[in-house]
Amino acid sequence: MRNLTMLSDFYALTMMQGHFSAPKQENGVFEVFFRQSSTFNYAIAAGLEEAINFVKNIKFSHADIQYLRGLNAFTDDFLDYLAKFKFSGTIRAVPEGTVIFPGEPILTVDADIKEAMYIEAGILNIINHQTLIATKASRICWTAGNKPVIEFGLRRAQGPDAGIYGAKSAIIGGCAGTSNVYAGQKWNIPVKGTHSHGWVLSFPSELDAFRAYAKMFPNTCLLLVDTYDTLKSGVPNAIKVFDELKAHGYKPMGIRLDSGDLAYLSIKAREMLDEAGHADAKIFASGDLDENVILHLNAQGACIDMYGIGTKLITSQDNPSLGGVYKISALKIDGEVIPKMKLSDSLEKITNPGIKQLYRIYNKSNGYAEADLITLEDEKIPKPLTITHPVERWKTITFEDFEIKQLLIDIIKDGEVVYKFPKLQDIAKFSKDDLNTFWPEYKRIGNPHIYKVDLSDELYELKQSLIKQVRNKKG
Amino acid sequence: MRNLTMLSDFYALTMMQGHFSAPKQENGVFEVFFRQSSTFNYAIAAGLEEAINFVKNIKFSHADIQYLRGLNAFTDDFLDYLAKFKFSGTIRAVPEGTVIFPGEPILTVDADIKEAMYIEAGILNIINHQTLIATKASRICWTAGNKPVIEFGLRRAQGPDAGIYGAKSAIIGGCAGTSNVYAGQKWNIPVKGTHSHGWVLSFPSELDAFRAYAKMFPNTCLLLVDTYDTLKSGVPNAIKVFDELKAHGYKPMGIRLDSGDLAYLSIKAREMLDEAGHADAKIFASGDLDENVILHLNAQGACIDMYGIGTKLITSQDNPSLGGVYKISALKIDGEVIPKMKLSDSLEKITNPGIKQLYRIYNKSNGYAEADLITLEDEKIPKPLTITHPVERWKTITFEDFEIKQLLIDIIKDGEVVYKFPKLQDIAKFSKDDLNTFWPEYKRIGNPHIYKVDLSDELYELKQSLIKQVRNKKG
Repeated sequence: MRNLTMLSDFYALTMMQGHFSAPKQENGVFEVFFRQSSTFNYAIAAGLEEAINFVKNIKFSHADIQYLRGLNAFTDDFLDYLAKFKFSGTIRAVPEGTVIFPGEPILTVDADIKEAMYIEAGILNIINHQTLIATKASRICWTAGNKPVIEFGLRRAQGPDAGIYGAKSAIIGGCAGTSNVYAGQKWNIPVKGTHSHGWVLSFPSELDAFRAYAKMFPNTCLLLVDTYDTLKSGVPNAIKVFDELKAHGYKPMGIRLDSGDLAYLSIKAREMLDEAGHADAKIFASGDLDENVILHLNAQGACIDMYGIGTKLITSQDNPSLGGVYKISALKIDGEVIPKMKLSDSLEKITNPGIKQLYRIYNKSNGYAEADLITLEDEKIPKPLTITHPVERWKTITFEDFEIKQLLIDIIKDGEVVYKFPKLQDIAKFSKDDLNTFWPEYKRIGNPHIYKVDLSDELYELKQSLIKQVRNKKG
Repeated sequence: MRNLTMLSDFYALTMMQGHFSAPKQENGVFEVFFRQSSTFNYAIAAGLEEAINFVKNIKFSHADIQYLRGLNAFTDDFLDYLAKFKFSGTIRAVPEGTVIFPGEPILTVDADIKEAMYIEAGILNIINHQTLIATKASRICWTAGNKPVIEFGLRRAQGPDAGIYGAKSAIIGGCAGTSNVYAGQKWNIPVKGTHSHGWVLSFPSELDAFRAYAKMFPNTCLLLVDTYDTLKSGVPNAIKVFDELKAHGYKPMGIRLDSGDLAYLSIKAREMLDEAGHADAKIFASGDLDENVILHLNAQGACIDMYGIGTKLITSQDNPSLGGVYKISALKIDGEVIPKMKLSDSLEKITNPGIKQLYRIYNKSNGYAEADLITLEDEKIPKPLTITHPVERWKTITFEDFEIKQLLIDIIKDGEVVYKFPKLQDIAKFSKDDLNTFWPEYKRIGNPHIYKVDLSDELYELKQSLIKQVRNKKG
């Protein structure tokens, strides 16, 4: 296990020193949520297992303490406290793969306020990144429909972890495989790949290169056809090699297009392959793809059977940060809960106070998700249930015959992990099923219908009373 | 040292198997370069030390070999070869911190073609990421002028490595510190931070929170003033605390603005601080900043003394991938060099063939860089030197009195590291000096003057003859 103990922001330590010096025996309750994004209408939660591993494995070494001592910012008794640091709080979260929406608490921490502060940056780093890539992959795979998408981005990822955990997150979001051998081994993900342009260039001719590759992989032979000229050289040479393979009883896989106009080239290549008797040969496309390009290619009748996606998936290029935040929502002092919120000049930056629970309401007759409801943690859910728009309170909807699912579940209780982390393949299956409970209108990649996320009356009233209270006090 | 042996793409292994099965005793020469970017006119090379560590530490474990065996794609003798794999080739590169331009070879690999293929994805991953962030940081710091920029992005970075090596790269690009304690310890980077909104919310009042913080850090006290209302509450409370600190002989640092209009608020806060006798208190600004926002804030006379930059720096938000590639430029078979190039329908994607060297030409009288020249590796540089535009060959420029610097230097020779990696602080200093040899016109963040990168006549002629040769052959 890699030691990420020091993965924190300096301000966490200075604030911890402050709370240590003036101990008030208090717990802080913090929650992670994402703000509204103009790019993503929903997200796929990911990164929980690594975030919890980070929290559970925090252990300051002698060298860590010596380094901190050298900064001349901390007292010796605080450094002694750090040397014995062990997370002893409680964490709830939605399972990895869950479909989530802006403003929803997806992870809550209830812990000694010093412990809660220390883990902020590490938790956000891991959850922000993996959720971002799982979400981007989900949008791409949803647009690709039943055609497999392979993650190819290692070389363009923002460092090794971004490649490795990006590959994991892409699987959660629906990808069928990765080019990344490290990730393939770590999670038993199917690893995929054909050959490069360099392979073709290292032979006297394209045909020689194709034959050499086909000899090694007669049944999984996917030939990259754009090194010289896709339609005049690459596809005809591939057809020659496929003819030879089939004459020996093999079943080659197909060709890969990596440049040029993928709509035009795929349609022409399909015709050429079909005419040559290779209707079973697949066309794999790569090269600057994402969900928007796939949508346009589909609209023009491109004949593509599989997609390989690199840069735009592994960096979530059009939205490279999901902007998840970790905000205090309550203090617990001597057992009393004191709800907290951040006021702001912009309405959407005001946080929701209190210790919360998140519910999803399903239509009992068809199984589709109807709305999410954020409540205080101990509220009872009545039947029938009337929920109300978080701002426009005159907008209500009443559910008579519904099922309800509690989304935040216990992960760590009083320092002990009480959750069994599923295998990656099970997370991916769970996420696919979860996404299937949403109407396609919510998943449209452009101009989607907005899914309802409401606040319970009790939470709404608490929020309003705190706004008034804070406005009157002004610090 | 972290084991990243398996950080490679699956296609590297299948191609290596191909070369292994049909051994031709050949070396491949590959080079890393960046394509033209619409966002970045220059880049700052970074990541060399970690890329070389990756290469030198490749060692397949028994478990790795067993995993690969289970994929049923490789022969037993190839797996035996992998079990003994050790990089034995030669790598040249420009030192970290060097200013580089599109199309320039910044790292070259001359090795057994199998070894060269295996390290492709890992090298690109590391160099692409760190160069990207160093470049983004350089643009931001150049725009900020002599005002310090602190890197604050850990929580929004794409995974732990992106946070850690992003912090390192930000220092190379000119940042003065980081919030990231892990990176601070690893490279002895100054760690910075104040307190959060959560700190303020965990006290009965803003003034209580400020006083508690000031008590701990009387001389480095930087107060975050936007939790309730910046000008009506935050700044007046900060002034109260500064008065108290100064009455006791301390020298508080200043305030931090994190929301609202930073131009307006900084001007007003400056007035309030000055009127209260705190002209020495600094104003630190954060919140969705990058080089473009800083340029606009400066144009409106914002009174900001220091910047804290998170998301937009650590993800290089407007350009989250630099798109560096690793392309074959020659084969060496039985000692003979066979230049190679990739042809493409788009002119700018055609690679430059041959084994190369990169030179920078300086004006002897003022020390400024005049142009870069890509040559074949053994070319002599004549005096006077006439260089020619890479495409428009009628455009020439002649240098009479110049100095010339060879940029690609030996890093690994025949498997042995022959380079001493400088300390991060020395790299940052070197990079700053290097950037100072360029006229400001080349560094302008919008619509910059384009720096000359020319090809020698010999290289140009080789390229033309290969284009003709390939066009006639068509694979």
